[in-house]
Amino acid sequence: MKLTLLDQLREQNPIVFNISNFVTVQDVANGLNALGASPIMSEEVAEAGEMVGLAGAVCLNLGAFTVPQVKQITAVGQLANQAHKPLVIDPVAVGAVAYRKQVATELLRTVHPDVIRGNAGEIAALAGLDWQAKGIDAGEGAGDLVTIAQTCAQKQRCVVILSGPTDVITDGTRTVQVENGTPLFQTHVGSGDMLSSIVGAFCAVEDDAFEAAQTACLVFAAIGQSVASSQDRMGSGTFIVKLLDALQFTTVAEIQAIANYH
Amino acid sequence: MKLTLLDQLREQNPIVFNISNFVTVQDVANGLNALGASPIMSEEVAEAGEMVGLAGAVCLNLGAFTVPQVKQITAVGQLANQAHKPLVIDPVAVGAVAYRKQVATELLRTVHPDVIRGNAGEIAALAGLDWQAKGIDAGEGAGDLVTIAQTCAQKQRCVVILSGPTDVITDGTRTVQVENGTPLFQTHVGSGDMLSSIVGAFCAVEDDAFEAAQTACLVFAAIGQSVASSQDRMGSGTFIVKLLDALQFTTVAEIQAIANYH
Amino acid sequence: MKLTLLDQLREQNPIVFNISNFVTVQDVANGLNALGASPIMSEEVAEAGEMVGLAGAVCLNLGAFTVPQVKQITAVGQLANQAHKPLVIDPVAVGAVAYRKQVATELLRTVHPDVIRGNAGEIAALAGLDWQAKGIDAGEGAGDLVTIAQTCAQKQRCVVILSGPTDVITDGTRTVQVENGTPLFQTHVGSGDMLSSIVGAFCAVEDDAFEAAQTACLVFAAIGQSVASSQDRMGSGTFIVKLLDALQFTTVAEIQAIANYH
Repeated sequence: MKLTLLDQLREQNPIVFNISNFVTVQDVANGLNALGASPIMSEEVAEAGEMVGLAGAVCLNLGAFTVPQVKQITAVGQLANQAHKPLVIDPVAVGAVAYRKQVATELLRTVHPDVIRGNAGEIAALAGLDWQAKGIDAGEGAGDLVTIAQTCAQKQRCVVILSGPTDVITDGTRTVQVENGTPLFQTHVGSGDMLSSIVGAFCAVEDDAFEAAQTACLVFAAIGQSVASSQDRMGSGTFIVKLLDALQFTTVAEIQAIANYH
Repeated sequence: MKLTLLDQLREQNPIVFNISNFVTVQDVANGLNALGASPIMSEEVAEAGEMVGLAGAVCLNLGAFTVPQVKQITAVGQLANQAHKPLVIDPVAVGAVAYRKQVATELLRTVHPDVIRGNAGEIAALAGLDWQAKGIDAGEGAGDLVTIAQTCAQKQRCVVILSGPTDVITDGTRTVQVENGTPLFQTHVGSGDMLSSIVGAFCAVEDDAFEAAQTACLVFAAIGQSVASSQDRMGSGTFIVKLLDALQFTTVAEIQAIANYH
Repeated sequence: MKLTLLDQLREQNPIVFNISNFVTVQDVANGLNALGASPIMSEEVAEAGEMVGLAGAVCLNLGAFTVPQVKQITAVGQLANQAHKPLVIDPVAVGAVAYRKQVATELLRTVHPDVIRGNAGEIAALAGLDWQAKGIDAGEGAGDLVTIAQTCAQKQRCVVILSGPTDVITDGTRTVQVENGTPLFQTHVGSGDMLSSIVGAFCAVEDDAFEAAQTACLVFAAIGQSVASSQDRMGSGTFIVKLLDALQFTTVAEIQAIANYH
């Protein structure tokens, strides 16, 4: 775990080009900005090459798209691959919506991500495992989650982050589990989207995607946990305000002090 | 008034599929989430059938759309009708913009909503009444508002919510007026959009749309009033933060204690 | 500097029609609303004429657009010119992305803005000056910024606002510099977009675009500075909440007390 990557990120201020989810785009931009990265967004394929050229990393969020946007998303992914820019894919809802799974599967045929980040249902769907039938509620064994994440990583040949109360980060062989976090992440729509783009920001300053991914997860989870523990009975409105503040101010030492991973 | 529907909503966590207004989509998603429902959004017609299938209710916000989106909105509305999913329509600006009125009128020819929610100008436009000419400022008699809402409900054969300092809820025969609320709702763009989607969430847990609509109005208005009264001279930035918190934490008993309707 | 324009704006509640940037649209709408203006947004060309007709001013934000949207943006700009409605253009990223510069240049061939607002790199690009090569970091002389803004204003024959730690406002001959502000504006994505639309709101209540532009800059910068100084080590999450509150409540006298311009 290379927590000093956070200092590097803040020093280098990498540009992250996001194909964003229109529901959460403003929070994602503000989250990246608060942490110390620089967000750019575009939906126009004519400027995709330039945007990828400016970027230190690219994040494709599949949270809300139309058919024309799928073409642009695919083009951006291919351009990122060609330019050897780190690529993160967030396959929103591929576990619940067959159409989403079909689009993501097609995309993964022509685009190779460095990192895929999703929840258990999404990662299981891309692993080809039947998880949805069991639901994604707590109570499922952590062992299963590791297997799912590893299977997905092996199948998709990339680093996989399976987010949840415990984040599982794996390259198919090596696995790290981050135990930090807070249930408040679930109360605010877009926490997952924000994490995916933050993973991109860490990939922009660290070539090893497995290192970048696990550090991003620890930083985000620990900062969220720290915010949640600062007040009793915090609501989702207050949480996002304080989360943005904390993304800006939390130090490596403060994260180190509460880091809980294995 | 069945305030216990709020507890049911929080227990059942119904999915509300929103055709959203891009200006306010994130607040709407967060508001639904904070209250205890689960928001999904999509602009792609190819997944409309699946989205409607997942949903406990559908809300069509006509606040900002392009011609291609009108096709998707219409398809979603028809699918909701076919699947007998409760359907809420928010006809934003149909009182002020002739093009919006034309699109909404066309939509209402092929799609039947369970609830329409709008302000006085919007509801009057859909009732075929000449309200715009008189303006929508305060000082108009409440009696007029009831007549407008009832006329619209009878013409459109659905429950109508006419929102304002007093919310008028009617099925064309029975009428309830909710007197709770706060002027702060007007200071935050998207309060009305949030209410429309919350009406959808209540419709997902209560078959009687008239009951669901009036309860949604009372819950939202009372929570807003409670937030506003918690601090002198509250601004719109603080209001939305505290509103999201309060949507999450306010209990049925707390709402009951300040409920003001007849 | 006509600070009393703020009182006029709050009294007249002008409608500002925004072609918005999807990343920041909600904050822009809330910012306009909080200050006392009334935002409307639309992406549909079929209602462009009506929207322009309703509006007291029009603001075209070029922050995120697709090719079809460029057609709508152009149509809206031309309609604003024909109807003699004040027109503000925010040429986001024209300094960094050649495609954006090309679209903006094309737009400026058929649409005449009353005000252009951008940062140093954007204004230099529209002035035809080679600024990007030098970067846009602090340390550049303020004298250069004035020259860049004036050159752009002369070339584009309109008022130009070059935003930064010092805002330069010029009609090509007369120049005002506003020294108020806070680095917190940079921590929140969309501060510039919000300012551009607020410039539109001031143009709606003051025929002299140079007066309107400088007053808008002073009001926005002074309110931001006042918010930032109200708390040590404020983060970007807290800043936007308090900024919205302060846009609503700050008086002309409070701004006058800290106004710093020449």
